[in-house]
Amino acid sequence: MRPDSLAQAVVDSFADTENPRLKHVLESLTRHLHDFVVDVNLSLEEWETAIDFLTRTGQKCDDVRQEFILLSDVLGVSMLVETLNDIETPEATDSTVLGPFHMIDSPRRALGENISPDSSGQKCVVHGTIRDEQGVPVPSAVIDVWQADAEGFYDVQQPESQQQGNGRGLFTADENGRFHFQSVVPSHYPIPTDGPVGELLAATGRHAYRPAHIHFIVGAPGFRELTTHIFVEHSRYLGSDAVFAVKSSLVRDFTPRPAGTDNPCGLVEPFVEAQIDITLHDESGDDT
Amino acid sequence: MRPDSLAQAVVDSFADTENPRLKHVLESLTRHLHDFVVDVNLSLEEWETAIDFLTRTGQKCDDVRQEFILLSDVLGVSMLVETLNDIETPEATDSTVLGPFHMIDSPRRALGENISPDSSGQKCVVHGTIRDEQGVPVPSAVIDVWQADAEGFYDVQQPESQQQGNGRGLFTADENGRFHFQSVVPSHYPIPTDGPVGELLAATGRHAYRPAHIHFIVGAPGFRELTTHIFVEHSRYLGSDAVFAVKSSLVRDFTPRPAGTDNPCGLVEPFVEAQIDITLHDESGDDT
Repeated sequence: MRPDSLAQAVVDSFADTENPRLKHVLESLTRHLHDFVVDVNLSLEEWETAIDFLTRTGQKCDDVRQEFILLSDVLGVSMLVETLNDIETPEATDSTVLGPFHMIDSPRRALGENISPDSSGQKCVVHGTIRDEQGVPVPSAVIDVWQADAEGFYDVQQPESQQQGNGRGLFTADENGRFHFQSVVPSHYPIPTDGPVGELLAATGRHAYRPAHIHFIVGAPGFRELTTHIFVEHSRYLGSDAVFAVKSSLVRDFTPRPAGTDNPCGLVEPFVEAQIDITLHDESGDDT
Repeated sequence: MRPDSLAQAVVDSFADTENPRLKHVLESLTRHLHDFVVDVNLSLEEWETAIDFLTRTGQKCDDVRQEFILLSDVLGVSMLVETLNDIETPEATDSTVLGPFHMIDSPRRALGENISPDSSGQKCVVHGTIRDEQGVPVPSAVIDVWQADAEGFYDVQQPESQQQGNGRGLFTADENGRFHFQSVVPSHYPIPTDGPVGELLAATGRHAYRPAHIHFIVGAPGFRELTTHIFVEHSRYLGSDAVFAVKSSLVRDFTPRPAGTDNPCGLVEPFVEAQIDITLHDESGDDT
């Protein structure tokens, strides 16, 4: 069978698919996948390498490690999907990728609480307001945050299991849409390189680093849930994020403040202040 | 970042790849993968489903199960790679897919031996000659065969581990390129459906069956190694193989013979006879 008639035979095999969306996706997948294999004239040895790579990628996954998300990330696919699904309004805060570290629930914390009690590093006060596109505060918005520590590690990468939840917090904004919490200034860090994705980066001469950031998922009834990061201004690797997730609109000042500076967390020592205001998209006017 | 500039950024990230072939394959993979995601406008939920599907596909694999080969098979990719890499000469026997069951070594057996001593079913005598494209026998060709039994199961699918090697044999042709062995007539069978690939087939209304066949890998010094099947004529599913691997040139008569018919295995009871002559491609004249 010729390559093009083989692709057609596979497409035809999906003719009885009940779900029209699934049928459409699989037909497109078949055509693009076959086109790729034909374009590079894939050898049997390369096919075997690919099978082995994909198998090991799946087997590297566990409760706290998602190597396929990592693969999607370094191939820019996660950011592409995020971009395609983002509702770009001039007002709403931009989205970016989820990343592979949102695998455990963030502990519920009270406003002002320290999300990184087990971390040393520069103390940081993060505060801001959740608003709608008209600038009106969104009361009781739910804010899920997670971040690496000053050494660049998420809790799930720490060998001490009692650290689970360190660097994470689930907050509810007050009646004026305001939130604040204490943490440490996150560091840039390498994505995990001890698996197949690390082999891919090494083989292609790519570094594994992401610029420093804090993850946010913000939701409130009637608003589109926002998955994003806030990046630390002047962080290394802002121009070469290993997962292509930087948007300039998401970079914020992290400003050093001397001891005694007024702050909502009541810190008396020096700290770094980051104001992170977030604007949600009101879904009530959307077609869907 | 716009989708097309995102794809370009990923391609650019591979600029320092030392191996030019790897660089080319990854650039093409990136473009086709991004084109697919854009073409179907993949939703975040669909991306999550895909991540979960691929993860479970990897985790279904073990020493005797290769779910990613199965996925490649049902998407026609295995057959496409086989077709692209096949040297199609009018004389040489056609190749077809390896399949997911060549995971354990076939036991070395003497010519005439029964490869399926633990199977019941129609007794079968398989014999033939390995030749070059000029019709000259290839002495001492090595013939690796494996097949399902009359119930459609490979040894590794049987719960009894002592069955490993049943339905398999590694033979060396005699000085005239001839081989013969005893077995049972294989049955058509479903590929394993208790994993993600089975879910895909169910969701798309596809049956899981393959027509009855015997796998062969035949090699000899100076010749291109041939990976193929021989299909049983009139088997069900010859027209709708779940893995798209049927070539009409590979279908052979399996002819019932009455008791007492002369045969190289010395059977006195009734049996089914299959003559399977195979022609190898002489690589000595090839460019590579």
